[in-house]
Amino acid sequence: MVLSMRVALISIGDEVLIGQIVNHNAAWLAEELTLIGCSVVEHVTVGDVAQQLTQTLDRLRSECSVIIMTGGLGPTHDDITKDVLTQYTDDRLVMSESWLLHLHEWMRERGREVTERNAAQALLPSKATLLANPIGTAPGLSIDHHGCLLVALPGVPTEMRHIVQRHLLPVLIERLETSGGVRRQYVTMLTAGIAESSLADLLGDPQEFLGTSSLAFLPNYHGVRLRIGAQHADATVREAELWRVRDYIMQRAAKYVYGSGKQTLAEVIGVRLRERGQTLAIAESCTSGMLGARLTDVAGSSAWFLGGVMCYSNESKVRDLAVSEETLGSFGAVSNEVARELAIGVKERFASTYGIGITGVAGPGGGSAEKPVGTVCIAVATPEHCVATRHQFGNDRHVNRERSVGMAMAVLWRLLS
Amino acid sequence: MVLSMRVALISIGDEVLIGQIVNHNAAWLAEELTLIGCSVVEHVTVGDVAQQLTQTLDRLRSECSVIIMTGGLGPTHDDITKDVLTQYTDDRLVMSESWLLHLHEWMRERGREVTERNAAQALLPSKATLLANPIGTAPGLSIDHHGCLLVALPGVPTEMRHIVQRHLLPVLIERLETSGGVRRQYVTMLTAGIAESSLADLLGDPQEFLGTSSLAFLPNYHGVRLRIGAQHADATVREAELWRVRDYIMQRAAKYVYGSGKQTLAEVIGVRLRERGQTLAIAESCTSGMLGARLTDVAGSSAWFLGGVMCYSNESKVRDLAVSEETLGSFGAVSNEVARELAIGVKERFASTYGIGITGVAGPGGGSAEKPVGTVCIAVATPEHCVATRHQFGNDRHVNRERSVGMAMAVLWRLLS
Repeated sequence: MVLSMRVALISIGDEVLIGQIVNHNAAWLAEELTLIGCSVVEHVTVGDVAQQLTQTLDRLRSECSVIIMTGGLGPTHDDITKDVLTQYTDDRLVMSESWLLHLHEWMRERGREVTERNAAQALLPSKATLLANPIGTAPGLSIDHHGCLLVALPGVPTEMRHIVQRHLLPVLIERLETSGGVRRQYVTMLTAGIAESSLADLLGDPQEFLGTSSLAFLPNYHGVRLRIGAQHADATVREAELWRVRDYIMQRAAKYVYGSGKQTLAEVIGVRLRERGQTLAIAESCTSGMLGARLTDVAGSSAWFLGGVMCYSNESKVRDLAVSEETLGSFGAVSNEVARELAIGVKERFASTYGIGITGVAGPGGGSAEKPVGTVCIAVATPEHCVATRHQFGNDRHVNRERSVGMAMAVLWRLLS
Repeated sequence: MVLSMRVALISIGDEVLIGQIVNHNAAWLAEELTLIGCSVVEHVTVGDVAQQLTQTLDRLRSECSVIIMTGGLGPTHDDITKDVLTQYTDDRLVMSESWLLHLHEWMRERGREVTERNAAQALLPSKATLLANPIGTAPGLSIDHHGCLLVALPGVPTEMRHIVQRHLLPVLIERLETSGGVRRQYVTMLTAGIAESSLADLLGDPQEFLGTSSLAFLPNYHGVRLRIGAQHADATVREAELWRVRDYIMQRAAKYVYGSGKQTLAEVIGVRLRERGQTLAIAESCTSGMLGARLTDVAGSSAWFLGGVMCYSNESKVRDLAVSEETLGSFGAVSNEVARELAIGVKERFASTYGIGITGVAGPGGGSAEKPVGTVCIAVATPEHCVATRHQFGNDRHVNRERSVGMAMAVLWRLLS
C-alpha cells in the first residue's frame, strides 16, 4: 500500500483573505511537501478569527495527519494562532527560558532591549516543541495532538522557509521513513530550449520507460521542468529508480537539461561563465532590461556580467551598438540581421566574450502582416560566430517579453555547453 | 446593521494544490470583491476530486451567500467543475446554441474547426446563467441554488478577470445595492516617495478625520497605498463620504499621491511625459535593467522611453556614460556624485529630457563600514538641474533592488509634478 501522509495547509490572516497579499507561502510549502512525498489535500485561508480557526482545525484533523498553519504568530493583538492552539490542545503558556535568552541576544546584537511585547514571544504552549527561527523573533511550534501533528509557523516568507527547511522537513521525512509505508519521492530536472510537446516526443511513450514511477511535464516561460516520482518502502530502491529514470531522460535529452531542483538558468549560465573566466554583455530592445534584471538577480553576477544597452529606439541601436542604417532600412528593426548586429555590437562595445541581441514586437501595437505581434529575433555572438533565430510567440505583451528572455538564456546556455 | 455579503472562494486543481501554481486568482478576486463591499470569509483550494468539491460546497453553502469557483472548466477529463455542479443542483447538461455558435465563430477566425471536445464546452447546466468569456472557449456559469449563488469561472487568469469585470461584479454590486443593507465601498489612493510612518504622521490621528469610515495603510516596495472605506445604505452618502476623506488626505499629502486604483507609477510617469512630449533615458548599475523592464511594461512606452545603459561595471560607467575616473576614484562607484554623472551622462547620450542614474550595493557582497549593503544613490537629471539622494535600504538583495526602482520612479514623478 502506498503511504500518503495527508497534509493540510491553513493560512491565517485578514491580509491574505482580502487579497492584499498573494499566498506564496501555500504554494512554496505545498511544493516542498509534495517533493518529499507528502500528499497535500487542501489549502484553506481564514481570517484572524479564533472560532473560524478552531472549526477549521476540527474539520481537518479528522482527515489529515499533519496540519501546517502559517501566520498569526506575531506580537500584536490580532495574532491569534498561539492562543487558539493552546486552548485547542487544553494547554497553558509557559515561558521558554531558552527562547527568552535567544531574544535577549538577538536584541542586544541590534542594540535594542527586550520589551514586554517581545518577551511574550517566548511564552509557548507547554506541550509544544519549539522550532527555532534563525532570522526572526517568533519561533515555530509543533504539537502532537491525538495523532495529528499541528505545526504553527510565522507568516513572514523568509522566516517560514528557514524553519521548514531546517526543522520541519527533517521531522516529516523521518516520519515518512519510519512509518513503514511505501514512500513517494521526487526529483526535478530542468530543461530549456525545447517545447513541451517536442520533449514528450523525444522521450517516447512514458509507459515504456516509467514502470511504477511517474513523470510530470511542468512548462513555464523559461523551459519545461520534468518532475520524476518514484515510490517504494526502501529508500535505496527508490533512489535507484529515480536515477534509472533520470539516466533514461539524459540519454535522450541531455542537451536540453540545464540543471535540477530550484536552480535558475541565469545561475547555471553564471557558473559556467565564471568557471571559464568569460563574460557577457547584452543589447535588449523589446525586453528592455528584463534579461539584465534576471541575470543580475544572481548574487555575484558582476564577475561575469559586464552590462548592456536598452536600445528601445532605433537611434540607440545605431549610435550605441553600431547597427547600420542600411540593415535597419532593408530588413527592419525586428529581423535576424538587426539582432545579429546588436549581439556583435554589444559584444564589441563591452569587450565581452559573448553578446546577446533581442529585438521584437512585444505588442499590443507595432505588428504587421509580415511581422505580427509576438515576432522576436534573438542573436547570440560568440568569439567564433553569431547565431540568430526568429520566433513567433503569442499575443500577450507580458508573455512575449518573458518568453524572449527565456529563449535568449536557453540559446546562450546551449552555446556554452 | 451592516450588510456583508459573505463570499467564499474555491480554487480547483491539483496544480494549485501541489504548489505548481501560485494562487494569484484568489488574491485578485478577494481584492476586487472586498473593494465593492463583499466580505470574503474563506479561500479553499481542493484537488480535481468530485467528492472533495461537493463536501466543500455543502460546508460553505450554509455560511455564505456567494461561492466563487475557479478552475476545472476546461475540456479534459480532469475538469470536474461543470459535472459536479450539475449533479449538485440536480440539473442536466443542455447544449447552449448561442455558445456553440460563438465557438464556431471563434474557431473559424482562427482557421480551425470545432472538434467534439470543443463543442462539449457549450454543454451547460440548464439552470445556469452563462457568463460570456470574451477571450476563451470556456464560459463562466452562475446558478442560484436555494439562495446561494454558485459561480464557476475558468482558471486561466486573463479569462477569469475579463468575466468577473464584465459580468460578475455588476451582478454582485446590483445585489448589494438592492439588498437594502448598509453597503461598504472602498477607494484606493496611491502614494510614492514617503514612508508609511511619515505618511501616518502627516495625516494625523485617524479618529479625528475618519468618522465612520476606515483607512488602511498598505505599503509595498514602490509606495504606500491608502484604502479608504465608507459604509452607508445610500450610495450618494457613501460616495460623498469617500470624497470627504479623499479631500482631507489630498489637503495634507497631495504631493505624494500619484494615482488611484490599479494604476502603476510607470504608467503615470508615461502619461505625464507623453502629454508634454518629453522623454527619458536611464543608467542602471545595481538594478541593471529592472527599472527599464518596469517602464517598458507599459504598452506604448516607446513614445517616451528612449532606452538606457546597464552599467554594471565601472568601465561601462566611464566609457558609456562619461563618468569621470576622478569622480569614481574620489567618491567610489556608490556615491551621489557618480549617480549624478550617470544621470547626466545618459541624458546627454540619449538626448532625452530626463535622465536617471542608480548605483548601489545590492548585496549580499560588496558592503563596507562606510557603505553597507543596502546603500543606494539615485539621481534624476532634468533640463535645469540634477537631484541626487542617498538611501539606506535593508539586507536583502532582491528587496534592495526593488526599493531602488520604486524610489527612482518616485523621485522622477515628483519632479514631473
